[in-house]
Amino acid sequence: MRPSHRAADALRPVTLERAVARYAEGSCLVCFGNTKVLCTATLEERGPPWLRGSGKGWVTAEYAMLPRATHERTRREVNSGKPSGRTQEIQRLIGRSLRAVTNLSALGEKQVTVDCDVIQADGGTRTAAITGAWVALHDCFAWMRSRSIISVDPLRDHVAAISCGIYKGMPILDLEYEEDSAAETDANFVLTGKGGIVEVQGTAEQDPFTEAQLLELLRLARSGTERLVALQKEAIA
Amino acid sequence: MRPSHRAADALRPVTLERAVARYAEGSCLVCFGNTKVLCTATLEERGPPWLRGSGKGWVTAEYAMLPRATHERTRREVNSGKPSGRTQEIQRLIGRSLRAVTNLSALGEKQVTVDCDVIQADGGTRTAAITGAWVALHDCFAWMRSRSIISVDPLRDHVAAISCGIYKGMPILDLEYEEDSAAETDANFVLTGKGGIVEVQGTAEQDPFTEAQLLELLRLARSGTERLVALQKEAIA
Amino acid sequence: MRPSHRAADALRPVTLERAVARYAEGSCLVCFGNTKVLCTATLEERGPPWLRGSGKGWVTAEYAMLPRATHERTRREVNSGKPSGRTQEIQRLIGRSLRAVTNLSALGEKQVTVDCDVIQADGGTRTAAITGAWVALHDCFAWMRSRSIISVDPLRDHVAAISCGIYKGMPILDLEYEEDSAAETDANFVLTGKGGIVEVQGTAEQDPFTEAQLLELLRLARSGTERLVALQKEAIA
Amino acid sequence: MRPSHRAADALRPVTLERAVARYAEGSCLVCFGNTKVLCTATLEERGPPWLRGSGKGWVTAEYAMLPRATHERTRREVNSGKPSGRTQEIQRLIGRSLRAVTNLSALGEKQVTVDCDVIQADGGTRTAAITGAWVALHDCFAWMRSRSIISVDPLRDHVAAISCGIYKGMPILDLEYEEDSAAETDANFVLTGKGGIVEVQGTAEQDPFTEAQLLELLRLARSGTERLVALQKEAIA
Amino acid sequence: MRPSHRAADALRPVTLERAVARYAEGSCLVCFGNTKVLCTATLEERGPPWLRGSGKGWVTAEYAMLPRATHERTRREVNSGKPSGRTQEIQRLIGRSLRAVTNLSALGEKQVTVDCDVIQADGGTRTAAITGAWVALHDCFAWMRSRSIISVDPLRDHVAAISCGIYKGMPILDLEYEEDSAAETDANFVLTGKGGIVEVQGTAEQDPFTEAQLLELLRLARSGTERLVALQKEAIA
Amino acid sequence: MRPSHRAADALRPVTLERAVARYAEGSCLVCFGNTKVLCTATLEERGPPWLRGSGKGWVTAEYAMLPRATHERTRREVNSGKPSGRTQEIQRLIGRSLRAVTNLSALGEKQVTVDCDVIQADGGTRTAAITGAWVALHDCFAWMRSRSIISVDPLRDHVAAISCGIYKGMPILDLEYEEDSAAETDANFVLTGKGGIVEVQGTAEQDPFTEAQLLELLRLARSGTERLVALQKEAIA
Repeated sequence: MRPSHRAADALRPVTLERAVARYAEGSCLVCFGNTKVLCTATLEERGPPWLRGSGKGWVTAEYAMLPRATHERTRREVNSGKPSGRTQEIQRLIGRSLRAVTNLSALGEKQVTVDCDVIQADGGTRTAAITGAWVALHDCFAWMRSRSIISVDPLRDHVAAISCGIYKGMPILDLEYEEDSAAETDANFVLTGKGGIVEVQGTAEQDPFTEAQLLELLRLARSGTERLVALQKEAIA
Repeated sequence: MRPSHRAADALRPVTLERAVARYAEGSCLVCFGNTKVLCTATLEERGPPWLRGSGKGWVTAEYAMLPRATHERTRREVNSGKPSGRTQEIQRLIGRSLRAVTNLSALGEKQVTVDCDVIQADGGTRTAAITGAWVALHDCFAWMRSRSIISVDPLRDHVAAISCGIYKGMPILDLEYEEDSAAETDANFVLTGKGGIVEVQGTAEQDPFTEAQLLELLRLARSGTERLVALQKEAIA
Repeated sequence: MRPSHRAADALRPVTLERAVARYAEGSCLVCFGNTKVLCTATLEERGPPWLRGSGKGWVTAEYAMLPRATHERTRREVNSGKPSGRTQEIQRLIGRSLRAVTNLSALGEKQVTVDCDVIQADGGTRTAAITGAWVALHDCFAWMRSRSIISVDPLRDHVAAISCGIYKGMPILDLEYEEDSAAETDANFVLTGKGGIVEVQGTAEQDPFTEAQLLELLRLARSGTERLVALQKEAIA
Repeated sequence: MRPSHRAADALRPVTLERAVARYAEGSCLVCFGNTKVLCTATLEERGPPWLRGSGKGWVTAEYAMLPRATHERTRREVNSGKPSGRTQEIQRLIGRSLRAVTNLSALGEKQVTVDCDVIQADGGTRTAAITGAWVALHDCFAWMRSRSIISVDPLRDHVAAISCGIYKGMPILDLEYEEDSAAETDANFVLTGKGGIVEVQGTAEQDPFTEAQLLELLRLARSGTERLVALQKEAIA
Repeated sequence: MRPSHRAADALRPVTLERAVARYAEGSCLVCFGNTKVLCTATLEERGPPWLRGSGKGWVTAEYAMLPRATHERTRREVNSGKPSGRTQEIQRLIGRSLRAVTNLSALGEKQVTVDCDVIQADGGTRTAAITGAWVALHDCFAWMRSRSIISVDPLRDHVAAISCGIYKGMPILDLEYEEDSAAETDANFVLTGKGGIVEVQGTAEQDPFTEAQLLELLRLARSGTERLVALQKEAIA
Repeated sequence: MRPSHRAADALRPVTLERAVARYAEGSCLVCFGNTKVLCTATLEERGPPWLRGSGKGWVTAEYAMLPRATHERTRREVNSGKPSGRTQEIQRLIGRSLRAVTNLSALGEKQVTVDCDVIQADGGTRTAAITGAWVALHDCFAWMRSRSIISVDPLRDHVAAISCGIYKGMPILDLEYEEDSAAETDANFVLTGKGGIVEVQGTAEQDPFTEAQLLELLRLARSGTERLVALQKEAIA
C-alpha cells in the first residue's frame, strides 16, 4: 500500500483554474492535491537578443517557491544571491516543454514568460507547473489573437507532465512528498497531447532500475498525462 | 472625485482569511480590494545570535512580490542578486510594527518569521501586509500555546496599517495604484488597537504638505485602522 | 536631564563648510556636534534612462559611512556585496528631499549626484547629510550657471532636516548617539525654508506614541530646521 | 550518413589515462575523441554537515570548462558571479551517478570531491566526465585503502555514461558537437557495470520522440557503456 | 620641467595630523599635496582564525576611495558588489608593509585593522596611505600599552613609501596625477626607517626601463622615504 | 643547499608545447618542472569600448587554477562569486607584460584574450604563464596574418618572466613551491628579449632586503629570462 492510500496508477484530484491573476495576459492556478502552483503568462515587449531579425519568438519560464510552501520553511533564494541549481533545472525544463509544442515562427519576434510560483508544495511541483503553464500560455495566445497581435495560434499541441516512481519495488504515479522522499527511483515525464515524448528524466535514488521498470513507469505516465490533457481541454472549453 | 469613486474616508472591501497555508503555524490571506497578500508565520528553531542568553525572542518579516502581481511584470529580485531597497524598507517596517505589540520576553528565545508575499498588487501592499501579518502571528502564537511552547500570549495589542494621501488637494484613505501614482503626498500609518502610533511615514511627492494636512491624514488613518482592528477581531473570533 | 546636558530644544553646534573637495562641482562638510558628513555634488554627463526625451533632469544621492566613523568599527558594505537596507533607505530619503525643492525642468536632461560620506557618526547622520547636501547642490548649480550650462537656478527653496525623539517621556531635539539608543521614539523631519513638510518619519522603538507627542516633535523640528536654514543662508552668502 | 562518418553505434576512440595529476589522490584524463576532461579526486577532511554522526560519507562532483575548450571562447563563470544552470545540472548528475555505485557507509564520515574540468569540448562532456570520474574515484579509494583510511572498497560497481541522439531520424551513439547541435532528440544514459540504469535523460529538441525510439536509444547506450566499462577495467588493471 | 614645477627629487608638502578620528584607537590624516588619506587603526576583538593558538597577532589594512576624491566621479565599489582588483592589490600591499615592521608575537592574538580612506586623490594614494597608516598603527599600539593590553611596543621600525617614475626620460619623485598619467615608468617603493627594502614595484607603462634607471629610482625613493620617516618621528614626538 | 637540489641559478626543465588546443587561434602548454600552465589566445570580435574609434587594439589576459592543481584542493572562485585579489593581481600583470611588447596600432581595433589556466602548480605559475602566453599570442598573430586580418606582426619583442627569491640568505632562481613558502624575499621579474625591464616586483616576507640583494636577484632573473627567450625562439622556429 502506498502512503497516500491511492491506487498505483491514481492521480490526485487535479484542478485547473483560469484567469486567477487580474493583470496577466494568461493565468492558471493548478492543484495536484495539496500541491498548488500559480502560473502567469506575460507578453514581453521583445524577444531575446539572439533571435533579433529571425522572425521567431521565444517562450521561457521562471520557477520559484514561496518560503512556507514547504513543510519546513525554505530560505528565500534572493538572500543567497542566486537561484539554486534545482530552481534553474526546473525552469529550464518548463521552458523546453512549452517550446516543444509552440510554433515560434507563428509567435513572431515576441517573448512570452510564464512564471510558475509554488504556493504550496506536496511533491510534483515541476510537473504541475508544466501542466498549468500550458493553460496560462494558451490564454495568453488567445489574448494576443483577440487583439490581432498574432493571427494564428502558435500552439501545435497540448503538453502535460507527471511524476512517477518506484516505491518499495512498485511503480506508482503522481507521488506526494512523503512518497517521493522514500522512493527508490524518481522519474518525470513530459508528453504531448498526441502521446509524443518531450522529456524523460529517470533517476535511481538507491539501486539502479531496469529497462522493464522504465517501460512500466512510462506506461503509468502516459495514462496520467492523457487524463491531464483531458482536464486541460475541459478547462479551456 | 477620486479615481476609485470611493468616498475620501472609505476603505476598499477588506477580507482576512485564516489558515490558508497548510504547513505554516499561522497564516492569513489579506485582501484590500485587488491587493492580495499571503502572510505565513513560521516558528523558527532559534532566535538571532544577538539575543542568545537574553531570554527574549524575536519577530521578523520578509516581503516579496510575485513577478506578475503588478500591472507590468516585475523582474524577480533573485535575478539581480539582492532584495531591492524598497523591499528591505518594507520588510523592516513590517517587522518593527509586529514587534511593537509583542512581548518578546513572553516569547522566549525563539523567532517567528512572517513571510508576506504579494500575490496581486493594487496599491497599499505594505499596509495590507502588516494588517494580515498580525493575524498570522496571532495564530502562530495560538499554535504555540496549544502545544505549551509558551504559556502566555506574547501579543499585547492589535496592530494595523493603512495608507493615506493627498490627491488633487484632498486627503483620501486607502489608495489604489492609480490614486497612489497621482497623489501629491503619500503617507502610511501604523496604529495599535488602543490607538497609539507605531509608525508615521509621510512623503511629499510634489509640493510640501502642511501640519494641518498631516493631522487630517492621521485622522483618516485612525478611522481606517479602527475598522481594520475590528475586522481582525472578527477574524480571530 | 538629557545625556548631552542640552536643553530639550537645543541644537548641537552646527557648521557648514563649503568648497572642501577640490574636484567636486559643489561640496560641503557639515558638522552637527561630533557628527561629520562630507557632501560632494557631481554633475553627471547624463540623466537616468527613463527621463530621456522628457527635458527633465534628476537629482540623486548616495550615502555611506567610513568603517571607523562609529564607536565600534563597522564592516565595509562592499565586503558583503551590497548596500545594506539602512543605507538604501537613507540614500533614497536624501534624494527625495533634494528633489522636493528642485525644479527638474530647469535642470535640463542632466543628473546631479550628491555623495554623502559620513566621516564621524554621533547620531543624526541622515539629517546632517540632507542639510549639508543642500549646500553642495546649491554650489553645483552655481557652478553650472557660471558656465552657462543652465540659465535659471533650479532650486526653489531651502531644505533641511533634523532628528527628534522622546527620551524618558520628554520630547527632545537633535539626538546624539547615546540619546538615540535610549529614546522611546525616534523621528526625522525634513522641512523646506518656507516651512512645508517634505518628509515625516516617526517610529516607536518601545511604546506607541500619541498624536500630541507627534505634534510636539514637529514643533521642535520646525524650530530646529528654521535655525538650520538660517545657517545655510549664512553659508552661501 | 552522420557528420562524423561513424557507424550509428560506433564510439569515438576513448582513452582513460590514470595518475595525470601529481597531487590528487586519484586522477584520470578521459578522452572521447576530441573531448578531453581532466578528473581529479580529492579526499576532503570532513563530510557535509548533514551527515555528521551518521557514520556515512559523501561523494560529490564539480564541473567546469576552460574558456577556450569550446569552438568559440566561453566567458568564465566566475565573472558572472555564479555557476550557470547548465553547470549545476551537470555537476549534480555526476555526483548522483558516482554515489549510485558507492557504499557510503564503507567510506565513513569523509567526503571525496571529484573535479571534472573540460580541457577540450567536442560534445559529450558530461558523459565523458562520469566515465573518467569513476576511474579517479577508484584510484582515490585505492589510495585510501593503501593508507588504511578505509578497510573495504566502497565501490559496488562500475558506472559509465554515454550520449545518444536522433539525427535525421536515425538513432546514433556518442554525438560530436556538430551532430549534437543538429540532433532532433538528445539523450544521456548512465548505466552500471551490471547493466542497471542509474539515470535516463531524454529531451526532444524539435519534434517529440516515440517509445520505440527511446528503447532504440537505450539499446545503443547499453552497447556503448558496456564498452566503456571494459575500458575502465583495462585502465585499472 | 615636470608639470608640477617641482625639482626631480622634491616631495610635495607632506603633513601627518594625528588623532583626527574621535573613536579610533589610532588615527592620522596624511596629506601629500592634494592627496589626502584618512587612516584609522582599530583594535579588533580577535585575530584571524588561522592564527588561533599560535600566540601571534595580525595587522591588516583596507583601502577605499570616496567617489568624488577623483577628478571624475568614480562609481562606488559596493554597487558592483566587490572590491576591484586595484583596491585589493593596494590593501594587500599596505597590510604587508605594516606587518614587515611589526613583531606579531608581541601583539598577542589580536588583530589591528587599519582603514585607509582616500578623501582626495592626486596621485600616490597608496604610498601616502602606508606612510600615514604607520602613524595610526603607532598610536593604536600606544593606546594598547597605556591600557596594559600589551607590554612591549610591537613596532620594530618605521615604514614609509613613495612613488617614483620616469617622465620624459627623467626619473622623478612623488608623482602627481598629471605626472603619473604621462609617465613612461611607474614605481612604488616601501622602505624601513633603517633603509631596508620592504617592497619594490616597477612597471613600464610604455618602453621597458633599464637597470640603471631602476637604481636611480631607488636612489630617489630612498631620499624621499628618509624625509617621510623624519616627519613621522616629528609627528609622534 | 636549496630544497630542490638545484644550483642557485638553475632553471627547472622548461618546455613550451605549441598548438595544444584544437580550437584556439594560438596555444601553448608551458611547463616549468611540475608547474604546468595551458595558455590559449582567442581573437575576440571587438576591442574594449574605450578604444572604439582609436584604431588601436588590446591584449588582455585571464588567469585561473584548477582546484586540484595545488597540493591541497583549492575552492573554485566561482563559488565565492568573484575572482580573488591574487587572481586579479596576476591577470593584470600578464596583460601588462604582453602589451609591453605589442604594437597595439598594428593590431587594429581587435582584442586578443590570453587565458592562462594552471593545470598543476609547483611555484612560479605567474611567470610560467607570461612565458607561455607570449608563444600563444605569437601564434594567434601568425594565424591572423595568414588570414590577412593584419598585415604586420604586432609583436615588437619577446617577453618572459621568472621568479627569484632569497632563501636562507642566498639569492636563488625559479623557486618551487617548497622553496617559495620558506623564502625570506620573493621577487618576480618580467624582461624583454632585448633585456629591458617590464616589471619588477620584490616583496620582503620577513626581514627587509638590501639594494645589493635586489641587484643580485635582477642578475639571476636576467640570466633566466635569456634562457627562456631562447626556448621561445626554438619553439616558434
